[in-house]
Amino acid sequence: MEQTKIIIYGCVVMGLRVAEILSKKKSFAIVGAIDIDPELVGKDLGSLLEGDHNLGISIQNDPVELFNTVDADAVVLTTLSHLKEVFPQIDQCIQANLNVVSTCEELSYPWDREPELSRKIDDQAKDKGVTVVGTGINPGYLMDTLPLILTAPCLEVQSIKVSRMMDSSKRRIPFQKKIGTGLSPEVFRNKIDNKIITGHVGLLESINMVAEGLGWKLDEAVELPPEPVIADREVDTGLGLVKPGDVLGLVSIAYATMGGEKVITLEFNANAGVDEEYDEVVIEGIPNVHELIIGGVHGDIGTVAVTINTIPRAVQFEPGLILMKDLPPAIATS
Amino acid sequence: MEQTKIIIYGCVVMGLRVAEILSKKKSFAIVGAIDIDPELVGKDLGSLLEGDHNLGISIQNDPVELFNTVDADAVVLTTLSHLKEVFPQIDQCIQANLNVVSTCEELSYPWDREPELSRKIDDQAKDKGVTVVGTGINPGYLMDTLPLILTAPCLEVQSIKVSRMMDSSKRRIPFQKKIGTGLSPEVFRNKIDNKIITGHVGLLESINMVAEGLGWKLDEAVELPPEPVIADREVDTGLGLVKPGDVLGLVSIAYATMGGEKVITLEFNANAGVDEEYDEVVIEGIPNVHELIIGGVHGDIGTVAVTINTIPRAVQFEPGLILMKDLPPAIATS
Repeated sequence: MEQTKIIIYGCVVMGLRVAEILSKKKSFAIVGAIDIDPELVGKDLGSLLEGDHNLGISIQNDPVELFNTVDADAVVLTTLSHLKEVFPQIDQCIQANLNVVSTCEELSYPWDREPELSRKIDDQAKDKGVTVVGTGINPGYLMDTLPLILTAPCLEVQSIKVSRMMDSSKRRIPFQKKIGTGLSPEVFRNKIDNKIITGHVGLLESINMVAEGLGWKLDEAVELPPEPVIADREVDTGLGLVKPGDVLGLVSIAYATMGGEKVITLEFNANAGVDEEYDEVVIEGIPNVHELIIGGVHGDIGTVAVTINTIPRAVQFEPGLILMKDLPPAIATS
Repeated sequence: MEQTKIIIYGCVVMGLRVAEILSKKKSFAIVGAIDIDPELVGKDLGSLLEGDHNLGISIQNDPVELFNTVDADAVVLTTLSHLKEVFPQIDQCIQANLNVVSTCEELSYPWDREPELSRKIDDQAKDKGVTVVGTGINPGYLMDTLPLILTAPCLEVQSIKVSRMMDSSKRRIPFQKKIGTGLSPEVFRNKIDNKIITGHVGLLESINMVAEGLGWKLDEAVELPPEPVIADREVDTGLGLVKPGDVLGLVSIAYATMGGEKVITLEFNANAGVDEEYDEVVIEGIPNVHELIIGGVHGDIGTVAVTINTIPRAVQFEPGLILMKDLPPAIATS
């Protein structure tokens, strides 16, 4: 089997998880790794992975030099969330005729937030014959591509609501901290006001992707500030017991209106008091579609998987800045 | 908005339903209609639709002549289930440089059953620059494309089980008859043995699509003869009361093995005793995915919708004989 040759750009959490899985899959070969952290440069990528094995891939800090010396099909870019910051890195990849699959949240639907950069990426990618796609579990799949795919059996669609219900007590401690677990409501509000606690990144990108998929011209898309979820009983969390009246986590809501009606609603609820986790899509249309993923999809594993499973499609597909909804669907790879 | 220009090939049940919906959608225009039934030829297509309005589209019996005189983008072909029979019609469309979206069940994954015809269609379609795709709710979506799409968040997949649970008492009377509603078990068995009652068409196509999507080389794919579902209480159906011990409907099962393990199982259960309808996908993998469409997807509406919603993707996509899993996903159209 011909292996797809991958360069890992960004050797921190998400990049390493992707590398860990790719190194075990027979249809992929890691051929290079990039990071600017002087602590990492020169180390073998394998030394940062579970098991500390040698991959023979030395982490380099100069992308252009690496791209000149190594034959690759695609770059997995996991460095930054904002397109403005990540644009120069994407551009380096494009200029080296490399396809780009990135977890940059804003890249999942960049046309609204960064129309000029999007145009540049699209033009350059077409010019060089490569595909650039922003992906991940959310944005990229659960709240945009999958709901759109679930409209396939509909003759008409009036509205879409997507809800994620996640039990944060099962998640990493830094995540539990990030969502305000254990804070008093006052401290939580203060952290919201000072943007120390922010909601889930990418809700507006998902809304815009859904709207474009359905050909909807929205009146507006609104992301509300995250709201605290307050304990009504004592709840055990990774940060200790949360007492009644204190914060269990948060809910992030974004919605969009068209013709004065609320037509898209996205709700991401992450708190330690959740009894049953799920990811839910409710489509009002002809016919209605009510879909549920029981137990929900694990966010971190999901993002690694969706990113990896998108690579073969991106490598094969027509050049340009492509949205997940327009790419042949990602399917589990071997 | 530029409208996609459609020719309706086959003006009976499914073709008429597609035409009915297309005639109301602003992104499509019906530009021609074909049927060989002398009773239909010369009639206005609109006279066969709900409301009996005039569409200005006279049903013709000579496809080649119609293709020569009308400018169209795609043909919706709903004539026959077996590829052998439908091949000459597909070929006519391809030779006229027309994309083909067809409900022919065998076309959804034709490579196993009809490799030579598949090769011919693929070659010819590439030569003429058109896309040919077999679609519908099942095969085409619920038991193949959608389950594959649900593997996107998986690092690994060990097995997939898809179950449809349909309350047949809500369905058309001919359908209830077709699945043996009200028969004694003996009469049912007899009709199975004589192939008067057959199971759901397309299970093997769905299995082959799933296997190809996951890169699995199967040991074998098996379709079992349909089994009767026996009433344990009196049940009201469209064919009258069914008494305990008689047949409420049937269950069709197909499965595939790999390395001696059952890795794909498809179960289509249609009977009048169903309390809750659903379509379910259970993926064993890392992580597991358990998905449910509560209430299920209505088969007839679903097939019309998926067929229509596939058209824009087929018109846009690269030429060849394309499988639904490899096409950018169908999304509800306006």
